[in-house]
Amino acid sequence: MPKLRFIPQNKEIEVESGINLLKAADQAGLYIEGDCAGKGTCGKCRVKLVEGDAGNPTKAEKKHLSEKELSEGWALSCQKRVKENWTVEVPVQKEAHLRKTTLAGGVENLEGDPAIEKIAVKLSRPAVKDQTADLERLLKHLDRDDLSVELRELSGFPGMLRSNNFSVTAAISGNRIISIEPGDTSDQLFGIAFDIGTTTIMGSLIDLHKAEVIAVAAETNPQNIYGADVISRINHASEGKGNLKQLQDKVIEATNTIIKELLKQTKVARDRVYEIVAVGNTTMSHLFMGVDPTYLAPAPFIPAYSRALELEASELGLDINPAGRVIFLPNIAGYVGSDTLGVILATEMDKRTSKCAAIDIGTNGELVLAANGRLMACSTAAGPAFEGAQIKQGMRASAGAVEAVQYVNDDFEISTIDDAPAKGVCGSGLIDAAAALVDSGLIDATGRIINPEENPDQLPEKFKNRLKRGESGFEFILVPGSDSETGDDIVLSQGDLRELQLAKGAIYAGLKILLKEAEIDEQELDEVLLAGAFGNYVRKESALTIGLLPQLPSEKIVAVGNAAGDGSRMALASKKIRERAFALPDKVEHLELSTRRDFQDIFVDALKFGQ
Amino acid sequence: MPKLRFIPQNKEIEVESGINLLKAADQAGLYIEGDCAGKGTCGKCRVKLVEGDAGNPTKAEKKHLSEKELSEGWALSCQKRVKENWTVEVPVQKEAHLRKTTLAGGVENLEGDPAIEKIAVKLSRPAVKDQTADLERLLKHLDRDDLSVELRELSGFPGMLRSNNFSVTAAISGNRIISIEPGDTSDQLFGIAFDIGTTTIMGSLIDLHKAEVIAVAAETNPQNIYGADVISRINHASEGKGNLKQLQDKVIEATNTIIKELLKQTKVARDRVYEIVAVGNTTMSHLFMGVDPTYLAPAPFIPAYSRALELEASELGLDINPAGRVIFLPNIAGYVGSDTLGVILATEMDKRTSKCAAIDIGTNGELVLAANGRLMACSTAAGPAFEGAQIKQGMRASAGAVEAVQYVNDDFEISTIDDAPAKGVCGSGLIDAAAALVDSGLIDATGRIINPEENPDQLPEKFKNRLKRGESGFEFILVPGSDSETGDDIVLSQGDLRELQLAKGAIYAGLKILLKEAEIDEQELDEVLLAGAFGNYVRKESALTIGLLPQLPSEKIVAVGNAAGDGSRMALASKKIRERAFALPDKVEHLELSTRRDFQDIFVDALKFGQ
Repeated sequence: MPKLRFIPQNKEIEVESGINLLKAADQAGLYIEGDCAGKGTCGKCRVKLVEGDAGNPTKAEKKHLSEKELSEGWALSCQKRVKENWTVEVPVQKEAHLRKTTLAGGVENLEGDPAIEKIAVKLSRPAVKDQTADLERLLKHLDRDDLSVELRELSGFPGMLRSNNFSVTAAISGNRIISIEPGDTSDQLFGIAFDIGTTTIMGSLIDLHKAEVIAVAAETNPQNIYGADVISRINHASEGKGNLKQLQDKVIEATNTIIKELLKQTKVARDRVYEIVAVGNTTMSHLFMGVDPTYLAPAPFIPAYSRALELEASELGLDINPAGRVIFLPNIAGYVGSDTLGVILATEMDKRTSKCAAIDIGTNGELVLAANGRLMACSTAAGPAFEGAQIKQGMRASAGAVEAVQYVNDDFEISTIDDAPAKGVCGSGLIDAAAALVDSGLIDATGRIINPEENPDQLPEKFKNRLKRGESGFEFILVPGSDSETGDDIVLSQGDLRELQLAKGAIYAGLKILLKEAEIDEQELDEVLLAGAFGNYVRKESALTIGLLPQLPSEKIVAVGNAAGDGSRMALASKKIRERAFALPDKVEHLELSTRRDFQDIFVDALKFGQ
Repeated sequence: MPKLRFIPQNKEIEVESGINLLKAADQAGLYIEGDCAGKGTCGKCRVKLVEGDAGNPTKAEKKHLSEKELSEGWALSCQKRVKENWTVEVPVQKEAHLRKTTLAGGVENLEGDPAIEKIAVKLSRPAVKDQTADLERLLKHLDRDDLSVELRELSGFPGMLRSNNFSVTAAISGNRIISIEPGDTSDQLFGIAFDIGTTTIMGSLIDLHKAEVIAVAAETNPQNIYGADVISRINHASEGKGNLKQLQDKVIEATNTIIKELLKQTKVARDRVYEIVAVGNTTMSHLFMGVDPTYLAPAPFIPAYSRALELEASELGLDINPAGRVIFLPNIAGYVGSDTLGVILATEMDKRTSKCAAIDIGTNGELVLAANGRLMACSTAAGPAFEGAQIKQGMRASAGAVEAVQYVNDDFEISTIDDAPAKGVCGSGLIDAAAALVDSGLIDATGRIINPEENPDQLPEKFKNRLKRGESGFEFILVPGSDSETGDDIVLSQGDLRELQLAKGAIYAGLKILLKEAEIDEQELDEVLLAGAFGNYVRKESALTIGLLPQLPSEKIVAVGNAAGDGSRMALASKKIRERAFALPDKVEHLELSTRRDFQDIFVDALKFGQ
């Protein structure tokens, strides 16, 4: 069996001969960026063979790598089969989630009303005159005769009681004792809220006794190896026996990594974490639970379930108290998940009387509209363009990503995350760049980059070196190769602009349909809320310029941070809010856009830059 | 590692050198009879070394085996350490439970009102106009929005639904769907009632749809290797880490063997068995559930729990539908378990207005008295003498056991089970023999066998050869060695009579205390019910003769069969009866005899034969 060594992570692994290098890295526990699930189309899973022979480049490698790169040993890991010992350099990603604010939500004070109750009691001692059994004695002192108890906890209970002077603490969930602990531990009450994103999984450890977030951590969703978007993952799950389990194992493993990190940061004991409340899109919910998502993909897009699922941590192998409860909040429809429900919770759109829209742009795009006593939601086929996928040099928001582009004083001002040498373009940079191109006149309303050969007079002299002919139309050079990390020009291509148009058009069209259903005009909106990490970084002006948002005064457009994550935290910290969450699916009207006759017309109209 | 071959079972096993032969047989899955948990005191774990050298006999072997037996290769398996390859002959036991009537209860018609409901539905098909999720669609058709569902069942539900034309059957327990099955399986609804005895485990497979017992099976409780009585097992459980698990594994394994046998007999599918309802004494309940029984042994005899425990079959590793429910009925006190509760259920003592006592003699003895609107119960330290333990040649009721002894026409008539050559004496034979000895005048009221040397005139000539001097006093020869299976005389010793006196004295004294508490005289009793297999076989006349029972007209003494097992069957078949069972512990007053000042006096008085 060939041996692989990965640097700088310094991991070694023996693999079966002939295995795909991308899969081998996954087996070694390494994450290699990529969007196309190994199809060779995204060109992002680059690695460098430091020792060993890569063999002849494939067609896909020739397309995505320069002669120079190939000669230096660069390869696409999805294109390589491991047949001999190799040392492979894996570019280190500084992940989006490391940007601190990504983790923060807009809700600062949690309402504390925990679903788990902890009660410390000191029991009377048994005697011949009082032969009450240990459990019944405990229940009598708790004054709760209706409680059942976890068998796991009962097993050693008699000994624990006697070696702790009959002083114990019970953790109660509903009408069940899920934990019995020696002495008084009533102030140790913790839970973890999860936002299971298609791209990133985030966890917040909450002291439920104090209703405070005490630590946050995040991980890339390792299902990524099966594709950047939910459809690829549904397809993978449907394609073979065991694939669903594979996807579930991935997300559970990453969730456990986050749990471990949170416990390490805070020195909280695993068994003192009694609840997990999770949100995520409907596909993520199915994959987390290991439920067949096959029928989410084709029309009519039917989920296996809608209601909240509640089970024991041990059933899923989650490393909190084994009897701890895991609650995945309910989904609204096949493509409107509990993440959107979390947005509604956090922004209290279900309680608002004003006219308000929320836009959550993550790997997918979901929209909610509250108006005239109705609450409506829909999903749009925005795709993951805003997270850098399907964009030629798109990347997630990590060091070296072009994150801001402004057209000021007749020139382009460009900055990257951490001021690192440019490596690519992230979502906010993409929108900014497009808006700056609109402002500069280098693209027209249809999104076409002006042809400097046909219309040389439209191109100011100083921008001449910013445009070059690419594979499909012209490209705008954001950062020349001389200044970039890779030595290649960092560009925005005509194709990238088309992707952006399709994505922003889908979102704007979705909003227009919701407004049409509610019979209100976009100018009547009191507020437009931008949820998701994206909302924190995108410049409202740019979003308005490209026509991603309705033309409203900029103060009416409010970034609300990771509202989906906030929703999960709120539902974890408060039983009352959780019950509100459980009831929400019945209150939200879901609009299925794909079959509306009026959608295509509105969509095409929404494609243009500017309004 | 030495190799062992067991014949006639023809099992081979490699074992660690030095292992005890009794334990090695257990590892090979063989059951060797024994009562003393390997202490060498009962002499019952005989085996014959067919190949290999047994080495020098131990003191215990010399005591229990004759010179001839030792020379033939007979040995006590608890005394032998395996150091070389041996072929070992294990005497085959035809178990008590093979006697057909042992399995039968007194209740012939079960009340059918199953706790599990099965509903077949044909769902409407989803469409864009009706995007209801699969689970919610099912719940809508079931008209039960309150149901939660087993995750295991949800996982493949979407595919199953579509490949079965949207026709499925749900099995519902309480407010939970525990199984979703393709097509209409609503008439396939099964459960198993268990009586987890200290000595024997019995199971009845019930067609819950028809409320009919369709198969019965039984196994020796393999915990037996750790001692015949509950105290030995509690001690073993307390003595080392892992011992409790060991005991639990034993009983679960035997329970699964019974399940397998029942399913094989009836060709019922494992997944169509949705419930197990079990009864057993409080120690058996703790060991079945894997709950520490330590504090049951010393005063004040406190159980870990009293209420019914209900859990999933998969939690205990029981081989029925993994989401099937397992319910162990509640216990009343440390030594009055759900088996006694089963007796009350089956005999409806909780509903009677007459004055009635029930005596359940198994490995332990429990008593119940219903009188004057009160229901009282106690346990007696009867010990397992009635099951043959602590009796010199005692054995369980299997082929070759002396089961009936009558003194008629001035002579003894003796019969064995299956008319096989005599091997020993079982419980009913023991009582019969003692009564016959009383009738014949060969023992006096204090239980002493007449000394033929001191009082030769008290001994008729024809009985001269029936008495011989044993280790401790005289012995009465039931079957001479010339007619026995073993070649040894089958005897009733003075020691055996003492054991019987202590056991029957304890039971009768217990009854007297209950009567005293209820302030009624034994003559006022309308009925005395004899529960347990024992009650089926003991002759009432003999029990009256030795003073095991109050002196009542024999028609007032009624054998009710395996009432404890009946109770479990009734509680399995009917939800209403099960609820009655759950409420019983609060209605039964438990009397703790061990600390009553009046007990010793009454006990000593109750020792004498005759009243």
